Order: sequence, then structure tokens, then C-alpha cells
Amino acid sequence: MSNTPVTVLGLGDMGRALARALLKAGHRTTVWNRTAAKAEALVAEGALRAETVAEAVAASPLVVVCLLDYDSVRQTLDPVAGALSGTAVANLTSGTPRQAREMAAWAAERGADYLDGGIMAVPPMIATPAAFVLYSGSRSVFETHRAALDALAQSHYLGEDAALAPLQDIALLSGMYGMFSGILHAFALTGSEGIKAADFAPMLQRWLNSMSGAVAGFAAQIDSGDHAQGVVSNLAMQAAAYHHLLEAAEEQGVSPELLAPLGPLMARRVADGHGHEDLSGLVHLLRTRA
Amino acid sequence: MSNTPVTVLGLGDMGRALARALLKAGHRTTVWNRTAAKAEALVAEGALRAETVAEAVAASPLVVVCLLDYDSVRQTLDPVAGALSGTAVANLTSGTPRQAREMAAWAAERGADYLDGGIMAVPPMIATPAAFVLYSGSRSVFETHRAALDALAQSHYLGEDAALAPLQDIALLSGMYGMFSGILHAFALTGSEGIKAADFAPMLQRWLNSMSGAVAGFAAQIDSGDHAQGVVSNLAMQAAAYHHLLEAAEEQGVSPELLAPLGPLMARRVADGHGHEDLSGLVHLLRTRA
Ligand SMILES: NC(=O)c1ccc[n+]([C@@H]2O[C@H](COP(=O)([O-])OP(=O)(O)OC[C@H]3O[C@@H](n4cnc5c(N)ncnc54)[C@H](OP(=O)(O)O)[C@@H]3O)[C@@H](O)[C@H]2O)c1
Ligand SMILES: NC(=O)c1ccc[n+]([C@@H]2O[C@H](COP(=O)([O-])OP(=O)(O)OC[C@H]3O[C@@H](n4cnc5c(N)ncnc54)[C@H](OP(=O)(O)O)[C@@H]3O)[C@@H](O)[C@H]2O)c1
Repeated sequence: MSNTPVTVLGLGDMGRALARALLKAGHRTTVWNRTAAKAEALVAEGALRAETVAEAVAASPLVVVCLLDYDSVRQTLDPVAGALSGTAVANLTSGTPRQAREMAAWAAERGADYLDGGIMAVPPMIATPAAFVLYSGSRSVFETHRAALDALAQSHYLGEDAALAPLQDIALLSGMYGMFSGILHAFALTGSEGIKAADFAPMLQRWLNSMSGAVAGFAAQIDSGDHAQGVVSNLAMQAAAYHHLLEAAEEQGVSPELLAPLGPLMARRVADGHGHEDLSGLVHLLRTRA
Repeated sequence: MSNTPVTVLGLGDMGRALARALLKAGHRTTVWNRTAAKAEALVAEGALRAETVAEAVAASPLVVVCLLDYDSVRQTLDPVAGALSGTAVANLTSGTPRQAREMAAWAAERGADYLDGGIMAVPPMIATPAAFVLYSGSRSVFETHRAALDALAQSHYLGEDAALAPLQDIALLSGMYGMFSGILHAFALTGSEGIKAADFAPMLQRWLNSMSGAVAGFAAQIDSGDHAQGVVSNLAMQAAAYHHLLEAAEEQGVSPELLAPLGPLMARRVADGHGHEDLSGLVHLLRTRA
């Protein structure tokens, strides 16, 4: 069985990493970039250069798109919209759930098979075991071209709704930035007494890895709607202790700004009569739509 | 070698767990609580009840204190201050670095040997391998009574300055609450499209455990002061992407309030000329003292 030919549109840092992974895996790889010079190193490694988007799209049954944003994707694909019928488009450009749905509808009107993807990796991680890509949209694109996609990273298919991959991509990144905010605050605190960050780092990492185990319990509480199930430290106690955590930061000359918003949310939830429950109930206060 | 007799002052949820662990490890355990009834179950399990604080303090060379806060510790110990000379006091009440230093000075004036401790566990975890306690202050108390302390949890001694344990306790809890804020936001996002929290939870937990690996790199950048070393995604790119993450939350009907403060901090750091550096440089903006 020969490897599927693949086209890559967009040779920024990420697109080049994707094209290189496909070449390494033995796919005939056609590349296009708005600024043509970025194709040169890849051509030297065996990629085929397309002079136009139309030529690039015609070259392969699978077109991987990795551009700056969805606007640039539309600007690039609009002129060749008439030639997309029957083509499998895997768009790995980062965007929002809404943008993914709009692009899926746009592609469907042109007869293209559309798969959306969210890359959970930086370019040097592509084609290493640490990288994974979330996919949603056309199951047939995912299944037909699984081998090519697996050459890029571990592949996770989340469902037919194109919005599912960008949504979970954004949820993971958001979770990470919350954790990073906590890490920055923690290092500011230890730094306030001259503790070397490298001396504190291993304990902090072990602690976060252990406390991330709370995710499963929160999930069970959220799914059942019963936020009192299995509570060990109730929210009223946590809210009082949290207040002291932020006071201690100020005593140490550390701005509590990154962690501050959780305090009023806890207090509101306690005031609403949920002091005996767990922290997970706060998700209800984050929803701005009914 | 016989086990050291130990006194426990304070039989709240945590104090009772500590006393029970000491009994199980074979220590002659004397207990006292302001509300005497809380001692009953422990006495039935073999603990000795002290009628007064003075009696409790006189009963053992090591006095473990676990009360609500430092004010209650002072209220409890002030009346017996004259009898503390030569006693080893291990105060596991939660407090701030400043409070620990004040208590260490107070104890030193009374001739007591003072060890401060921060318990990184909830009561059901006491005496299980998952629990650990951070200690700082008198090294001789820590070393002399290591066996009794190890009966409670894994023991980590951080240094002679009594503030070191509460500081790192607070730093770990702060890091955890940052992570929990990210987790709550992530579940609100996935919930906005009806994704079951339990279906998303394993991926979220794996992702956080993998991304917590950033701690070591941040620590190296913070210690060297060179926040440009080993940068993969620079701050300018991250700041732009972060803006889109919060916009996507609003599109999904999720309030970005928990994650919002990181955005302006990133923007300030980029505006200050650090756009080519890493996120770790934000610790400089969290310091409110020179
Ligand atoms: N880098 C990462 O760590 C990472 C991680 C996960 C996801 N992603 C996502 O991957 C995508 C690409 O990222 P990257 O790091 O490769 O970005 P990049 O290095 O900035 O490259 C951007 C690419 O988009 C092209 N482009 C921009 N505007 C265009 C337009 N109007 N028409 C046609 N082409 C246009 C650029 O072409 P020119 O060369 O002509 O400017 C370039 O090929 C983004 O959506 C990003 O969010 C990146
Ligand atoms: N529970 C946890 O998950 C946890 C985890 C880590 C650290 N800690 C820390 O451990 C300490 C105790 O926590 P806990 O969960 O045991 O709290 P708790 O169940 O509320 O017990 C509080 C204890 O303090 C006593 N107390 C309060 N005010 C007093 C006063 N003025 N004079 C004398 N005694 C007084 C209470 O006596 P009465 O019975 O007479 O009211 C009771 O023994 C706290 O500093 C807490 O932050 C707790």
C-alpha cells in the first residue's frame, strides 16, 4: 500500500514541521506558502513546490491547512472554492468552535470533506510521542487519512461536530494557563524569601501532579449536579482559607492579582447556600447563558 | 527504644487524625481540647485525657499543636508560658510566614524549642503515603522527634527560619488554586457544548500533568534572570493567542473572569520590551516590593 500524497498549505513554524513529518513518513508532499521562500528548505528535502494554491489543491487527495487564523484560511481557499469538490481538507489552524462550524458549513457547500484539528504541541514536538492533535468533523476524512495524520502526532477523533476539537483545544490551553498563573504566583511567593526557584520546583511539580487528581472528582460532581458528593474540605472552609492565602501574599509583597478572582466566586457560592459543597459548583457561576 | 510520649493540643478534624496516628504508631498520647467532649473517642482508643493545658504540656517532651489559627494558639499557650522551658513545640496550625516568625520569637523567649509545620493533606490522608508535612524552625526538635513526626506523614525539613514551612505551604496551595481555576474554566467550556465532564476529564488531567513539566524551565529562567533562555513560544505570540482564548470563552457563554488577570500582565510585559521572552518573566510584575 503506498502512502497518500498530501498537500500542506502554510509553511510557518508549524506548517514546516508538519510537512517535514509527512516527508519523513514517506508521503509525496506538495507544499505552498504565500511567501514562497519558506518552501526552499523543504523542497531540498524532497517536497514538491506548488506555484499556486490551485496547483497545490489539485496535487493531493488530502490538503492539510495550517495558516495564521481562519481569516487567512478563507482568503487562501476562496479563490479555489470551485476546485475543492471531493477533496479532504484537514484544517489545523487554531480557531474558535464558532469559526470551525462556519468553515465546515462553507466546505460542505463546496463539496469538500472537512476535518477540523487542534494541535496540542509546539513545532519541535511534532512527530514525537508527546504531541497530539484533536480532530472533529468528517469521520471519513479521519479514517481514510489516519496514516498521514498519525505521522504528525497522536490523533484523537472527538466527533462529527467540527466545533469539538477547537473547543477542547481551548479548554486544555485554558486549564494550562490557570495552572501557569498558580505557578507564577507560587514562584513569586518563594522568591519573596530568597528561596531558589529550582529548589522549590520539584515539590511544586509533584504537588500539582498529585492535586490534578481532583479532576475526576470534580467531573463526577459536575455530571451528577451533586456538588456535595464526597466533599472532604467544604467550600465555606476553603473560602475562609483562601482569603488568608491572598492576605499572606500581600504580607510577602506579592500581588494577589492572578488568584484574586476565585475569592469572590467562592464567597458568592457560599452566600447562595452552597457552603457545604465542593469547589466544583463554581462552574455554575461561570456560565453566562442559561 | 521506646516511643516518645506526645501531647496533642486541639482535637478538631485534623488534631484528631494526628492523635490517632500517634496512638497507632505506639506513642503514649495525651490529648487536650477546649471542648472536652471531642477527646472521648480518642480516650476510648487509648489516649490519655489532660484536664488542663498545663497538665497536657507537662505530660510529654513533644507538644503537637493543631488549633484553628495562631490567635487560638497564643490564647491556649499564654497561660502556660512559664512551663514551656525545655519543651519541644511542633505547631502544625496553618498560618502566615510572619505569624510563624512571631511565634518562634515568642517561644524562644520562654525557652521552648519551636518547630513550625504546614500540613499538606486533609485529615483522611494523615498517616497515608500521600500526606506530607513541611517543617521549619528548630532542627533539633525535628531530628529528636523525627519518628513521632514521621508517624503523621512524610516529613520535609526546610530550614531554621520558622517562616519557610508556612511560606512553601501557602505557595503550594496557591499553585493548586491557580490550577483549580483553570480546571473550572475548562469544564465550563466543555459543558457549554454538552460534553460530559467525565469524558473530558482524563485528557485534561493528562495534559495538566504533562504541562506541569514547564515548572523546571520556568525555575531555571527565574533563577538566572534570563527569561529568553530556551523559549519555544514567545510571550508576544502567547499574549495574542491568550486574547483569543478569552474571546472564545465569551463566544461559548463562559465568563473569562478566572483567567482574565493573566492577559493584562502579559500585555504589560510585552509592552515593556519582553515579547521575545517566556511567560516566567511575569514574576517580576507580581512583586510589589523592590
Ligand atoms: N507555533 C505553535 O506553537 C503552534 C501550536 C499549536 C497551534 N498552532 C497554530 O498553527 C497555526 C500556524 O502557526 P505557526 O506557528 O506556523 O504561525 P506562523 O509561523 O506565524 O505562520 C503563519 C503562516 O500563515 C501564513 N499566512 C498568514 N496570513 C496569511 C494570509 N492572509 N494568506 C495566506 N497565508 C497567510 C503565513 O504566510 P507567510 O509566510 O506568507 O507570512 C505563514 O505561513 C496557527 O493557527 C497557530 O495558532 C501553532
Ligand atoms: N482540615 C484540613 O483539611 C486541614 C488541612 C491542612 C491544615 N489544616 C489546619 O489544621 C488546623 C486545624 O484544622 P481542623 O480541620 O482541625 O479545624 P477544626 O476542625 O475547625 O478544629 C479547630 C480546633 O481549634 C480549636 N480552637 C478554636 N479556637 C480556639 C481557641 N480560641 N482556643 C482553644 N482552641 C480553639 C477548636 O476547639 P473546639 O473543639 O473547642 O472548638 C478545635 O480543636 C487549622 O490551622 C487548619 O488550617 C487543616
